[in-house]
Amino acid sequence: MNQKQILTRLALFPLLLVATGAAGQSKATYSFQKEGAKNTALESQFDGQLSSSHIGQTIKELSSKPHELGSANGKAVAESILSRFKSYGWDAQIETYYVLFPTPKNRLLELTYPHTYTALLKEPPLKEDATSAQEGQLPTYNAWSADGDVEAELVYVNFGLPEDYERLDKLGISVKGKIVIARYGRSWRGIKPKVAQEHGAIGCIIYSDPKEDGYYQGDVYPKGAFKNEYGVQRGSVMDMVVYPGDPLTPNIGATKNAERISRADAKNLLKIPVLPISYHDAQPLLAAIEGPVAPEEWRGALPITYHIGPGKAKVHLNLSFDWKTVPAYNVVATLKGSTWPEEWIIRGNHHDAWVNGAGDPISGLAAELEEAKAIGVLVKNGYKPKRTLKYIAWDGEEPSLLGSTEWAEHHAPELQQKAVVYINSDGNGRGFLEAGGSHALSNLIAEVAKDVKDPQTGVSIYERKRAGEIAKASAKAKAELLKKDEFSLGALGTGSDYSAFLQHLGIPSLNLGFGGEDSGGEYHSIYDSYDDYSRFKDPGFSYGQSLSQTAGRVVLRLADAAILPFDFRSLKKTADTYVKEVVSLNEQLQENRSLENQLLKNRITELASDPQKPYQAAQPKPEVPKLDFTPLQNALKALGLVTDELASKQNGLDKTKAGLLNTALYRAEQQLLLSDGLPKRPWYKHSLYAPGFYTGYGVKTLPGIREALEQGNWTEASQQITAVTGQIEQLTSFLQKTTNKL
Amino acid sequence: MNQKQILTRLALFPLLLVATGAAGQSKATYSFQKEGAKNTALESQFDGQLSSSHIGQTIKELSSKPHELGSANGKAVAESILSRFKSYGWDAQIETYYVLFPTPKNRLLELTYPHTYTALLKEPPLKEDATSAQEGQLPTYNAWSADGDVEAELVYVNFGLPEDYERLDKLGISVKGKIVIARYGRSWRGIKPKVAQEHGAIGCIIYSDPKEDGYYQGDVYPKGAFKNEYGVQRGSVMDMVVYPGDPLTPNIGATKNAERISRADAKNLLKIPVLPISYHDAQPLLAAIEGPVAPEEWRGALPITYHIGPGKAKVHLNLSFDWKTVPAYNVVATLKGSTWPEEWIIRGNHHDAWVNGAGDPISGLAAELEEAKAIGVLVKNGYKPKRTLKYIAWDGEEPSLLGSTEWAEHHAPELQQKAVVYINSDGNGRGFLEAGGSHALSNLIAEVAKDVKDPQTGVSIYERKRAGEIAKASAKAKAELLKKDEFSLGALGTGSDYSAFLQHLGIPSLNLGFGGEDSGGEYHSIYDSYDDYSRFKDPGFSYGQSLSQTAGRVVLRLADAAILPFDFRSLKKTADTYVKEVVSLNEQLQENRSLENQLLKNRITELASDPQKPYQAAQPKPEVPKLDFTPLQNALKALGLVTDELASKQNGLDKTKAGLLNTALYRAEQQLLLSDGLPKRPWYKHSLYAPGFYTGYGVKTLPGIREALEQGNWTEASQQITAVTGQIEQLTSFLQKTTNKL
Repeated sequence: MNQKQILTRLALFPLLLVATGAAGQSKATYSFQKEGAKNTALESQFDGQLSSSHIGQTIKELSSKPHELGSANGKAVAESILSRFKSYGWDAQIETYYVLFPTPKNRLLELTYPHTYTALLKEPPLKEDATSAQEGQLPTYNAWSADGDVEAELVYVNFGLPEDYERLDKLGISVKGKIVIARYGRSWRGIKPKVAQEHGAIGCIIYSDPKEDGYYQGDVYPKGAFKNEYGVQRGSVMDMVVYPGDPLTPNIGATKNAERISRADAKNLLKIPVLPISYHDAQPLLAAIEGPVAPEEWRGALPITYHIGPGKAKVHLNLSFDWKTVPAYNVVATLKGSTWPEEWIIRGNHHDAWVNGAGDPISGLAAELEEAKAIGVLVKNGYKPKRTLKYIAWDGEEPSLLGSTEWAEHHAPELQQKAVVYINSDGNGRGFLEAGGSHALSNLIAEVAKDVKDPQTGVSIYERKRAGEIAKASAKAKAELLKKDEFSLGALGTGSDYSAFLQHLGIPSLNLGFGGEDSGGEYHSIYDSYDDYSRFKDPGFSYGQSLSQTAGRVVLRLADAAILPFDFRSLKKTADTYVKEVVSLNEQLQENRSLENQLLKNRITELASDPQKPYQAAQPKPEVPKLDFTPLQNALKALGLVTDELASKQNGLDKTKAGLLNTALYRAEQQLLLSDGLPKRPWYKHSLYAPGFYTGYGVKTLPGIREALEQGNWTEASQQITAVTGQIEQLTSFLQKTTNKL
Repeated sequence: MNQKQILTRLALFPLLLVATGAAGQSKATYSFQKEGAKNTALESQFDGQLSSSHIGQTIKELSSKPHELGSANGKAVAESILSRFKSYGWDAQIETYYVLFPTPKNRLLELTYPHTYTALLKEPPLKEDATSAQEGQLPTYNAWSADGDVEAELVYVNFGLPEDYERLDKLGISVKGKIVIARYGRSWRGIKPKVAQEHGAIGCIIYSDPKEDGYYQGDVYPKGAFKNEYGVQRGSVMDMVVYPGDPLTPNIGATKNAERISRADAKNLLKIPVLPISYHDAQPLLAAIEGPVAPEEWRGALPITYHIGPGKAKVHLNLSFDWKTVPAYNVVATLKGSTWPEEWIIRGNHHDAWVNGAGDPISGLAAELEEAKAIGVLVKNGYKPKRTLKYIAWDGEEPSLLGSTEWAEHHAPELQQKAVVYINSDGNGRGFLEAGGSHALSNLIAEVAKDVKDPQTGVSIYERKRAGEIAKASAKAKAELLKKDEFSLGALGTGSDYSAFLQHLGIPSLNLGFGGEDSGGEYHSIYDSYDDYSRFKDPGFSYGQSLSQTAGRVVLRLADAAILPFDFRSLKKTADTYVKEVVSLNEQLQENRSLENQLLKNRITELASDPQKPYQAAQPKPEVPKLDFTPLQNALKALGLVTDELASKQNGLDKTKAGLLNTALYRAEQQLLLSDGLPKRPWYKHSLYAPGFYTGYGVKTLPGIREALEQGNWTEASQQITAVTGQIEQLTSFLQKTTNKL
């Protein structure tokens, strides 16, 4: 079914809203229902108000100028959003925070030996891209790079991950006192300079290799969607896996007069300069490096032999920044709940962009605004959400979640009292539903996904997501998945505005979007434009409408649910799989270490190595201990018993008990917060989900345990098993008390 | 231990040859010993005559000019080898055959649309390579291409394998009436035009992608060893998996007056023109192709987006050849056996090259000549090999094993009576022992390998090979391999001169060489020169000496063994693993088909596909039947009983019984020949080993069964199970009769 057909079908339903809405509500009993307050008629009315062409229009308007945090255009975008919310009938206002935001003063990168080359550091305008020649674009840079003027030999470090440095160690290569060049990919960008710095590098260059992000993937812009030789990915390199938000106000809102720490004391700021460059600029640098040829997995798609160095190539990197404080404008729109005004359903998407940001973030924001517009019409026609809705457009997400983090920190106590859920989106595109979040909400999302049609195929987005996942799985997993009919809700790391809600405050969170058929190279470049978006990301904007349909249904069902559709049996089941994974990780580490030691003792590694190539003799290491996961496994068993009991006792509750239950349901996830937070990063408190300390955006589940294992810290791993066990027991006890009262 | 140390150590042994040789012999009893007539003193004397610098000198001399089949230089090389053998004290002569050998008259390749480009088709001389500017180099071409003048749209077919065409089918792309361009690799080159022709293509271009063979692998020549942008791999594209040798004289020797078939009747000749080109010439062609972007696994390392076509790019290919008959000069040197002159130990390596051929074939030939020289000295000092030694230098190997095949076909009856073994080598390099052949000889090779020191590490070449194999294995396999101490003798496909001996005549064969640390891009180009070889392949020529030590020991131990060191328990054990593989292949095919059908029935494949990309709807196919392998498994069980019995009865035999046993042992492998040969290619008769019909050089074990399974021909697979079972039973019965007589 195509977009036109959907619109035609929906037009058959007249505005029966009040009547059917009421009918729908009268049927609702205080029963535990996984779909929440599903109201087919209401949702049809809602759908009827969504317009893909209006979404396209919004994207065009809000991405018409570069509008980064702190810019005049950024302020204008916030004001435009404010007036849109108001025109939709919402009570809206701007909440302003004052945050640090460095922008470039000087940028110089040059190859100084064995010949000279000065990097362009500039994306050229294209006649095929109307906004690419605009004034006021932020230059290509990594926000939160340190100021620095350094010159040194260059070392190629692959993706710049800890395992890449292990490989360098085996080759006897040190980056101490060198400048490293790493390619984008495999980790969040901020990990690369952090690990480089940990290893003694004095500067870091990050480039887009055409293998991951250029002609290797497909035709380049403007012929195709992929990165051309001059394209550069801007982006933050704040160490936001320590904490995100304004580096000067950890844990508190960056209000005008908030107490600030000094930049030198901010634990999430780098000490070395970092610069992102294009593959046009990277090629002369990489081609000049000598030393060992890079291992096969390290090679990109440039037409050169990749060498590691150090040797021959020497570069000079000189960067300085304007470390100014700027206002961040969060636009907050509210519709007060008619029955439970103190229970908040929060929906958010950021509005700031690195440049024009048609895809990131405006495509997601346009869907959010479309929902607000549609709900506004429903309200005009008599609909009253039972819980309070808060639709928010965040500022300063790009420089590391500044707007959302400051707001969440500022309103923390109130949020932990009132916030039922935080529903996030960000850039959106064509393809498959991508959903992540708190696993107690798995069933709700599954039910919603069954009710939204995929605009390209006419089947539900649930079916299409399932097909995509099966097709991508290994042959063995395919056969398993075919037998099941399960919805896979992903776990959340970081990379968008849910972090403070979920990982700092324990508020149930969701992140929704579509993608997988919208790949391209525009991300954080001047080419993330309306022209690019409308050609390559979501032509016709039908997935913008799908996002509105999906997120809107989640909002409406949660807003009106007599019993909130949280099911902790799903969380328990998911946690079981995480525990299996860490048990198996422990076993795998044991086996690997044991094998590695045998290979060393038997001289296999040495004798298999080419004597003409560098080989660092290694000594056997202590064997890996088998850790005791039984307390954790037992705690989950106990949780299983109480979640089953809770599920069985949710029918026919009176209003008081239902209210008591609801409050418990949406606050339960806070029981999983570790009071001391995670090792080395107390801001992150969730015991189940965190961004990886060495992956960044990528999630680590059971992060305390898993990362201690990965880092070979067996004592900490044991301590973390105890800590997580404690939180699971606390959740069990919390749910048991609730159950006892029903 | 380095090369110098080895030589020093050997110098400590004076010429004690006759005495210790006799002592060694006097200890030999007529017992079954896996190492043959191991004679440590004799072998030390032998080693003492080997000189790496002399090997280097031989390589330099014999590769000093281009010397392909049919050329004046080629004849001069044959004559030089003849006089060398004679000077070493051998009885030597040239045996000449008259074979078809096409060389280029005209070669033209041009892009004609959307713009024009004329391919250079020329490797430039380099000042760093002394022989690269010589007169008389064969131009870059594929021997046995058809004459043809064609113009058509170009389609990129990846490696040009059957599975690549399956992928094209799924994308709805046909090559009928088109010219295809395939990259070198994954199969023997001759498979690519054959499969293209089967699918209706009218021309085929094969190019070296820098991913497999160029800057992606390492620095290019002359800076490094890898293929520069102009390098071209020449080579035969005869369909030699049907039969090798002179296409006009299948099954018989191409003597002057042999009866010849017409070229049109030769089943191993192509009907379409084929041309190999450099990546410099390929890039403009590939860059001009439009149509779907190639799947990720299809992409090479050129700095372009790989498209499949057809679309835009059109090429014109015009090739014609001089189809002349030329003399092939095999140089055959003989040392008559003192005790069993009618039992022949044959050692061979070819002498013809595509151009200078310092690596291929002269490096292997130089080792063979060094052995002949050393044995000549032993003989001068009184040593008498008990069996007849035949050292041969073949002509015309490059255009598909012409010299060896014609000789073997010509002398077939005598060889099946007298040939104990054929020991082959070809290009040789630095690294690990690479050994393949008849599995009854596994133990012999293992014992020899334990007695030869690796020149770089000082451990035995056995230990180093084992280390290399363990290091390359998967983690799981590593743990298994560490527990074992087994020698892995490879199975032989084709690609060098053993084919006629092993696969046509059933003569036990071995192929020996070193490699793995000598990679580069010189293969079949003008850069396979002494300059290249001595810098990058085997600097110091120490592995040339290792090859002489290894092959020489095999020759000497087989020449003098009282009981030949054939152990059919090894063959039986190896055949068991092959049967396990085909049983598991059958199961895997069942599972795959079943899964594929389920994915189609559940619309998974369709719904997971991008609606904007081509998708060919497919229908479920019939399920794969489970074949009955029990007869074959039972036949191998019976073989196991008799091989055990045979092994137990080999001690203390008298001379007559020992003679009877020896004759049986070396003729036993002939029992495995299928009287009708393999389906579609009766020339190939071995039931255990053959080159793959769609892989070429790559071996297929149990080829009749395995290929029928791979091609989905279940009836033929069943017939082949019966056929192979018959040959195993025939071997069992043959060995049983022998055993009964002991």
